[in-house]
Order: sequence, then structure tokens, then C-alpha cells
Amino acid sequence: MAKKGYRVIVVGRGAVGQEMLRVLRQRRFPAREIKVLATSAGEISVDGQAYAVAAARIEEFEQFDLALFAGTEGEKGAAVTLSPGAIEHGVIVIDNGNDFRMDPEVPLVIPEVNPEDLEQHQGLIANPNCSTIQMLVALKPLHDRARIKRVVVASYQSCSGAGSRAVAQLERETEASVRGESAPLEAFPHPIAGNVIPHIGRFSDSGYASEEEKFVHESRKILHEPDLAVTATAVRVPTRIGHGEAVNVEFEQPLSPEEARQILSRAPGVVVCDNPAENEYPMPLDVEGKDEVYVGRIRSDPTVPHGLNLWIVGDNLRKGAALNAVQIAETMIEKGLL
Amino acid sequence: MAKKGYRVIVVGRGAVGQEMLRVLRQRRFPAREIKVLATSAGEISVDGQAYAVAAARIEEFEQFDLALFAGTEGEKGAAVTLSPGAIEHGVIVIDNGNDFRMDPEVPLVIPEVNPEDLEQHQGLIANPNCSTIQMLVALKPLHDRARIKRVVVASYQSCSGAGSRAVAQLERETEASVRGESAPLEAFPHPIAGNVIPHIGRFSDSGYASEEEKFVHESRKILHEPDLAVTATAVRVPTRIGHGEAVNVEFEQPLSPEEARQILSRAPGVVVCDNPAENEYPMPLDVEGKDEVYVGRIRSDPTVPHGLNLWIVGDNLRKGAALNAVQIAETMIEKGLL
Repeated sequence: MAKKGYRVIVVGRGAVGQEMLRVLRQRRFPAREIKVLATSAGEISVDGQAYAVAAARIEEFEQFDLALFAGTEGEKGAAVTLSPGAIEHGVIVIDNGNDFRMDPEVPLVIPEVNPEDLEQHQGLIANPNCSTIQMLVALKPLHDRARIKRVVVASYQSCSGAGSRAVAQLERETEASVRGESAPLEAFPHPIAGNVIPHIGRFSDSGYASEEEKFVHESRKILHEPDLAVTATAVRVPTRIGHGEAVNVEFEQPLSPEEARQILSRAPGVVVCDNPAENEYPMPLDVEGKDEVYVGRIRSDPTVPHGLNLWIVGDNLRKGAALNAVQIAETMIEKGLL
Repeated sequence: MAKKGYRVIVVGRGAVGQEMLRVLRQRRFPAREIKVLATSAGEISVDGQAYAVAAARIEEFEQFDLALFAGTEGEKGAAVTLSPGAIEHGVIVIDNGNDFRMDPEVPLVIPEVNPEDLEQHQGLIANPNCSTIQMLVALKPLHDRARIKRVVVASYQSCSGAGSRAVAQLERETEASVRGESAPLEAFPHPIAGNVIPHIGRFSDSGYASEEEKFVHESRKILHEPDLAVTATAVRVPTRIGHGEAVNVEFEQPLSPEEARQILSRAPGVVVCDNPAENEYPMPLDVEGKDEVYVGRIRSDPTVPHGLNLWIVGDNLRKGAALNAVQIAETMIEKGLL
């Protein structure tokens, strides 16, 4: 049974933190108090609603029920320093950062895909990476029907996935380009306007970028398929919001494009947008602000026995981050875990 | 033995036609006369060099040795109406358009890949599609060593591949976006600035776009591998010049990333740019204006026995179109075919 109202902390006032505040309000999350923590105190306004911002200290978590950590791109998130104390205070922590995702004691959850994993929680639940979430929301119902053998994915990821400074770099470069000028690099090691950069995260000795490794390891953990074959190329493109993914899937069992379309049209959190003859397919500009993952360009790949190509687009700030985190909290309320 | 100088016609005054004129001059092609044909007569200037433009009529080909057709995006090219008469006049026609590429009597040639096919010519040689050229320049030397079993490619294609109007749409939308406005659609069915569009060419009943089918059919013809397994997703991104390709290859024989790098560093027309630890990988902004195909992000794909992932970038107007066409002519001179 749900409590009358939860006391909720959002940690982070950047793009994802603001989107968390927006999503909590839009979905009428049963909060009787929402407090924002950030590096320094102040106030922020989201969609005309003002929120007090307190400096992040462990004492702020006392008497609160739920903390949503927005996470930070690249460096260690505030969840590393603050979540142990918050959990001791009895707070349920949902962390959008990368620090705990692969911890075997931490559930990594997409509510449409593996809600049952929430039952094993020990106070902290990790939100998967944006790119993984949208891919698995679309692939899980197909996996249930035909069992995935191998995935090859190439991503077209928007700048907001790298944080507000990355969006600022895109905007300043775009403005400068119109004047025939260039702008200083702020977030990426190269210009992004008019360019594509095959580099998201940090490179390991294997030559893979951390974003590419997340596709592999997070997919295996979330689907409980420790040997799932996934290989990825992650690429930044000059868009603001919304990641695209060209996904090639080989299945163990037959699965026609028609059947995949039927399955996906009934799948939770998925919208099938697949009428290329009428120029209808998912695109970042259309999917920005949407809750669902959009799937189109579904077609048979005849180069393997049971192959499909799909094109998947999701709003990386919403389903890829803030929305999924709030949906985790909602699912925990439904399950009596919060 | 080469003649003292060739009389050359360039058909088309758009982006590719202009690039053909630029490449002919930069490479000191042995031309004693260069004439431009277009829908209407006039004059154009490329890099400060003026060229007379004559209205395209069959009589213009008399006494000429070589005609380079720039081709048009989408619709039938001028080569359909003009090349039979030109060939009757004894002119060698090199067509960058799509109309004759799959004709079994027409060689489809990348000089680094299948120059021997030129010997079968019957007056007309087809230039492959931009995306196919750059992929095969990089893959052919690896195919020779380890034999390709299957290719999965996702492309990041620049607007110039869709012609000058497409670049104009990108530029006007970009300018408008800085003012918070939108601009009318001119070439694409959707906005391209700040967007990605998974649609290049025309869709067939199979759900594939013609650009995706070109990857399959042209690769098979050029490599003389009629059953080669290739599957593609072609996507337009908001860049001006330079196509990117995320290419996953399964080989029949073992091929390590190190050996692939060695092979590619010796391969004609290829530059290996692969030092991700120093943020070095190919990008469209760096490759614009370059003759070579750039390859980086070379890494092992452990999900198949002999797998590699590669990231390939080429200038679609140069190696993808104008340069390859001129190189075909140069190779024909070397072989005594022109």
C-alpha cells in the first residue's frame, strides 16, 4: 500500500536533475516534499515551478524516503560519497550514474524489462545507461519470443547525453558557424557541430569506449544472459536530445518483420513508427520529450538465418535517464518496496 | 602510351561536377581542353578558374575523348540520354550516376579494388556509390587476407551526398535555428539540422532504402563475390561533407586488429588514423578535402570467431565521386585503354 506522500530528494541540478523534477511533476508522483541537492545552495525553476536547492550533505537525507541521483558524465557521481549514508538513514537510492551499475548486489532495472530484480534491492537501485535502456525496451519482447543470438549496434547519440556543457558546445559552435567562425571546445575533444565523433566515454586497452562496453555488460546483466553476444560502436552526432540506434539482431528462432511489428506494437513503453513509404520512421527531433521508445525501419536481414534490422530512437534525458528512474520508484511503490 | 592531351567533357555543374573540375586540375590530368555541359549554357568558376558551360546536346561530344558524368541524386542522370550517342562518337564515358552500375556489361570500378575490370569496358564505366567506394577501399585488402564472411554497416552520411539543395537545406535550417526559427524543407522530407534521418534514396517493398541496397549489390559486383553477405542501415546526419561508417566484419580466417592495421597502413588510398588514447580517429571535419579513405577504431569483435569493428570516413564528393571517376580515367590511360 502506498504511503500518502513521499519525501523525495533529487541530487543534481543539471539536465537530468531538471528532467527528474519535470517528470515527477508531470506524472503526479506521490511526493509531499521535493528537495534538490547540488554542490552549492540556491534555487532553481523548472517549467515555472521553483525548487529550493540545498548544498549536498549527508544530513539532508534525514527523514526522506527516496533519493534520485542524476549522476554525472565521466567522473564519479555524488552517489559514491552520499548514497551509503543516505541508505543508512533509510532512504531508497535510485542512481542514474555509472558507479554501481555492474555491482552484483545492485539491481540494474528497466521497469518494462526486469522489474522483478527490484525485489533483491539493498537500498540502492541503478538506472542503466541511456543507450542500453532504449535498446532493451525494444529488444526484450523480441528476445522473449525468438531469443537473441547476437546484436550489432551503432549509435547516433545526442549531445545532451554528455551533459549541459556538451549542449552548450554544440550551440556555440552552431552560432559561430553561421558567422563563419569557430568556438572554443568545452566538452568534447573536437568540434561537434557539422561533425560526428566516434568516441563516447573512455577508451580501454581493447579499443572499445566505455559507452560501447556498457551496451555489452548492462544488456547481459539486465536480461540475465551472461554470455549474450553484443558488439557496439557509439558515435556522437550534432543533435541536442534523442539517441538513434541502428540495431542488427540475429535470433535463435524465426521472427518475421510483421511478427516483430505486432509484438512491439503491444509491448509496454514502445511505439512502432514504421511506414517508410510515407516517410515515417523515428527521428530525434520527433522523439524529444516523448516517454516511449520509438522503433521503425523493421526489416528482414537475409544474411543470417533469423535476422532483423531495426532503427530505435528514444529521448535520452527521459526514458534514457529521468523517466526510467521515476518509473523504478513507481514500480517499487506498486510492489510495496517503497 | 598516353596521348599528349585529352579533350574532356564534364557533364553537370553541381557539387560533384565542380569537384570533378577541381580534381582534374589538382591532379594535372593531361587535358588539353575541358568543357562543361549543363542544362543551360553559361560559365562557372571553380577555385578562380573559369569554365565555359554549354547546353548539353549530343553534338557537343564530337571530337572529345572522355566524358565524366556527375550524375544526379534520385532521378535518372543525363548519362541515360547522352551516353549512347557520346559512345558512338568514340567518347569514353565515366558515369557517377546510378543508372548503369548494375548493368552486367558495364564495369563498376574502384581503381584500388578492381582495376582489371576496366579491360572489359564497352565505352561506359560506372563509378560506384560514395558509401560503397569508401567501405571497399578499406575492406578489400582485408578481404584478400582473411576473406569476408559477413558485413553489417551503419552509415553517417553527409548532406552533400544528396546534392547542393540538401546542403542548402542544412545551412538555412542551421541559420534559422540560431534565431529560434525554422526553414522550409528543400531536399529532405524532414528537417536535418539537429536531426538524423534514417532514409537515403527510395524504399523498396523489402523495407530497405536504395542506398542500403547499393551497399549490398555494388559490393558483390565490385568484389566478384555474388553471394557476399552485406546488410546496411543508411542514415543522413547534419554534416556537410564526409560520410562515416560503423562497419562490423566477420572474416573466414583469423585477422587481429594489429594485422589489420598493418595491412591497411600499406593499402593504396587508405590512411590509418587509430590512436583513440590521444583522441585520434577519423571524423568528417578532418577528412573533408582529403583524397584517402580514413580508417580507425579498429578493434576485435569477440562475438564471432574472426570479427573486427572498424570506423571508416571518406570525403564523399572526392573519393566517393569526383576523385574516383578521375582515377578511373587515369588508370585507363595507364592501361592504354584511353
